[in-house]
Amino acid sequence: MIPLLIDVKNKNVLIVGGGKIALRRLLLFLEEGALVTVVSPVAVPEIIELSNLNQINWLEKKVDITDLQHAFIIIAATNDSKINEWIAENVSENQLVNVVSSAEKGNVTVPKSVKKGRLTLAVSTNGASPRLASQICNQLSNQFDDRFIKELDQLYENRVIKKNNM
Amino acid sequence: MIPLLIDVKNKNVLIVGGGKIALRRLLLFLEEGALVTVVSPVAVPEIIELSNLNQINWLEKKVDITDLQHAFIIIAATNDSKINEWIAENVSENQLVNVVSSAEKGNVTVPKSVKKGRLTLAVSTNGASPRLASQICNQLSNQFDDRFIKELDQLYENRVIKKNNM
Repeated sequence: MIPLLIDVKNKNVLIVGGGKIALRRLLLFLEEGALVTVVSPVAVPEIIELSNLNQINWLEKKVDITDLQHAFIIIAATNDSKINEWIAENVSENQLVNVVSSAEKGNVTVPKSVKKGRLTLAVSTNGASPRLASQICNQLSNQFDDRFIKELDQLYENRVIKKNNM
Repeated sequence: MIPLLIDVKNKNVLIVGGGKIALRRLLLFLEEGALVTVVSPVAVPEIIELSNLNQINWLEKKVDITDLQHAFIIIAATNDSKINEWIAENVSENQLVNVVSSAEKGNVTVPKSVKKGRLTLAVSTNGASPRLASQICNQLSNQFDDRFIKELDQLYENRVIKKNNM
């Protein structure tokens, strides 16, 4: 597994499932400007509300193979691991798929991450303990104060100016 | 940009360019089991050597549009930013592309990362200073000793046992 930063702005992200985990993933992608579709016969109130506000597209039905087409990334987050695994088996060769019930069935996992200005930290324990990964991520990010984040902005600006003068 | 861990094992990775930066990216993907193809009329000795050893596939020519097809991820790493940008403009909608000369033209950037056992740390300054990102990544990873990494292995084993008993 290689850690990469992926720009999901305006990308079609398919979330299969309508529970709490589906919601958590959904918010992560929505905040980064993805075009999110949820496929699930039922959904938690927050998903229904986001759908009512036209922030996401909710298909109130069971997933089928046509839903998987054209998605940039698919999050298999139903409470039925058989359905999740069926999804992983039916994506196309180069599609990105995250299976929340058994990460090893997909080709994407979602590490814990924190953003502070231009600084992004990501931590994964590769399945050992998501809770510990979260704690570590918060602890590490606390080591960087506002002054550091401002210095990083200055470094970025200097770099852009230098590049434009080349 | 969302930090994700991507499994590139047996995936087609296309590296366009044959210089030092191309080599650095190449090694990152090769170590994770990717099927690496390099397209470049010229290449540094390490790339030629890897090709001779059949560890990678080197196409000794300029890139054209057919090279881009079927790649899971494309690294545009030539020393000509015009060619790199042409690549970014000609990938298909859901293809992953990293443009080393101007990260904002692609949809993937590569953070600095360190692996210690099951622990993966990734650090990005989003273009402010790759060197500083590297320093931070090393400093943070030094906070985790061998004992911690062993404990993480134990946590993982306990979790797998628990899951299999459910």
